[in-house]
Amino acid sequence: MSEILDIAAALSRLLKAENILLICHKNPDGDTVGSAAALYHALTGLGKTAAVLCADPIPARYGYMDIGLYTGQFTPGYTVAVDVAGIQLFGDAIAAYTKNIDLCIDHHPSNAGYADCMLLDGDAAATAEIVYELLSAAGVDITPTIADCLYTGLSTDTGCFRFSNTTARTHEIAAKLIAAGASLIQLNGILFESKSRSRLAIERLALESLEYSFGGRCATIFLTKEQIAQTGADTTDIEGITSLPRNIEGVQVGITIRQQPAGSYKVSVRTVPEVDAAEICAHLGGGGHRQAAGCELLGSLDNAKSALLTEVEKALCKE
Amino acid sequence: MSEILDIAAALSRLLKAENILLICHKNPDGDTVGSAAALYHALTGLGKTAAVLCADPIPARYGYMDIGLYTGQFTPGYTVAVDVAGIQLFGDAIAAYTKNIDLCIDHHPSNAGYADCMLLDGDAAATAEIVYELLSAAGVDITPTIADCLYTGLSTDTGCFRFSNTTARTHEIAAKLIAAGASLIQLNGILFESKSRSRLAIERLALESLEYSFGGRCATIFLTKEQIAQTGADTTDIEGITSLPRNIEGVQVGITIRQQPAGSYKVSVRTVPEVDAAEICAHLGGGGHRQAAGCELLGSLDNAKSALLTEVEKALCKE
Repeated sequence: MSEILDIAAALSRLLKAENILLICHKNPDGDTVGSAAALYHALTGLGKTAAVLCADPIPARYGYMDIGLYTGQFTPGYTVAVDVAGIQLFGDAIAAYTKNIDLCIDHHPSNAGYADCMLLDGDAAATAEIVYELLSAAGVDITPTIADCLYTGLSTDTGCFRFSNTTARTHEIAAKLIAAGASLIQLNGILFESKSRSRLAIERLALESLEYSFGGRCATIFLTKEQIAQTGADTTDIEGITSLPRNIEGVQVGITIRQQPAGSYKVSVRTVPEVDAAEICAHLGGGGHRQAAGCELLGSLDNAKSALLTEVEKALCKE
Repeated sequence: MSEILDIAAALSRLLKAENILLICHKNPDGDTVGSAAALYHALTGLGKTAAVLCADPIPARYGYMDIGLYTGQFTPGYTVAVDVAGIQLFGDAIAAYTKNIDLCIDHHPSNAGYADCMLLDGDAAATAEIVYELLSAAGVDITPTIADCLYTGLSTDTGCFRFSNTTARTHEIAAKLIAAGASLIQLNGILFESKSRSRLAIERLALESLEYSFGGRCATIFLTKEQIAQTGADTTDIEGITSLPRNIEGVQVGITIRQQPAGSYKVSVRTVPEVDAAEICAHLGGGGHRQAAGCELLGSLDNAKSALLTEVEKALCKE
């Protein structure tokens, strides 16, 4: 188990450290990249040697940030995991650097404590909130560059202040970052307006396959393996559309059925709070949370749909 | 011209007034409804008689707010226009009440000053920001009910803190409203996740008609009058999709062509900052702003498209 640190103790460790390696999680998102880059700029500004390491390439959309990537320019003397909830999330490509983590800065309540020390705040909407507080405690000048990095983490992890993890503190920190010069207009444009051509192609197929059942209380979209391959959609594109059917006005159960390369059907079920998605999926050999669950079905599409809709009908009758 | 008031002066007028009629603009949005409803709750809490009037029905999605609609229960003694930029926006149905407006509270810099007095702040992202400051100056307790109304105005006018009008102050006020008990999760769900079936139907048609030109630098969508009629899409649904083609990764000019009931083509052009939309449209008899302009074309669709793409090519070559 990790030694639990507060902001002041974590800061004191960082200020004593030299040759600091800041490590992101694999499949990097805006929070792990933005938080690590903010720390990189702050620490180098304090005269430290630091760099950022990630097992996967940084997505092009975050190209506006100077991330200070590690290229072997120093031998790491102190390792900091940033927004990494578990060791399996580092990625094998950087295993040589992740055997012993000195400090973990994270906001995932599920973090099991794999690092020697941990600065964890499960109530923070993003790790960027914790990093902001750390830098403020250090008296670091929040430059426009650092503000851009932290705004990236804060806004991407909250869906631009829309998700249920958003709090008053999230907005307070956003206000401070904007006042410090975050490029709000440019960043919101890149992060929340731009959609890839493959994402639009998969949305088009999803909308074409959209079927309503039970008087509009259930909506289902269906994608074949050939369609998914044609669009060039990646996992993020596909995950992004699973919320589409449930977000239609009047819909209580939204279902996404996607054919897997081997032919089986992967089913995602999203529901309103009154309907139990986990129960629908449990009857079909799957499981999950009350409002987001899944299962995998074999056989013909018609049989799969029919089995699903039978369970949906039972769940809707209970409501 | 209106007498310009500051917060304190506007407050003093309101506190002296009796039987206050709060008037929204027609085609009401979240800011006019939320700001007027917040004032209604605050003024009645101060022992005043007040009610809210609007020429059009309040959209069902705002049904979570108790809006205190005017049903002739008192003779108005003081009229307040809330978020109404010009007299043409009141709507004929309530003309009997809008001949003389005592006070206008607004954030539109274009407001010409039709009211006797005006509390105008063109830097506010929403009229709800101004109302928040007015109620704070009055020492009004921001109840969860008032917080819900003001959060509605603030979040809808900024696209949930995404649009370029969002400022540090917008986030500061959002933080205060959340701390005061605004139902963040419920409201964001209703306002920013739910889409109408007609909106999805028009998005589907738009995506089906999507064409790329000039190596993906231009994207065009096209809707016939029959398609628009079939989907049941209203003006808001259609306006909502004009940003779709421009928001595709790599697209610099996004064009939406919609056939009008009489057969002509209404064209919306949206561009990145480097390309002048107004110039493209000026060559075709239209006009507008640098990044958002429009024109109307007659004749066949092929001719209209060809004329448009010729101008787009010229504009792209300049870049």
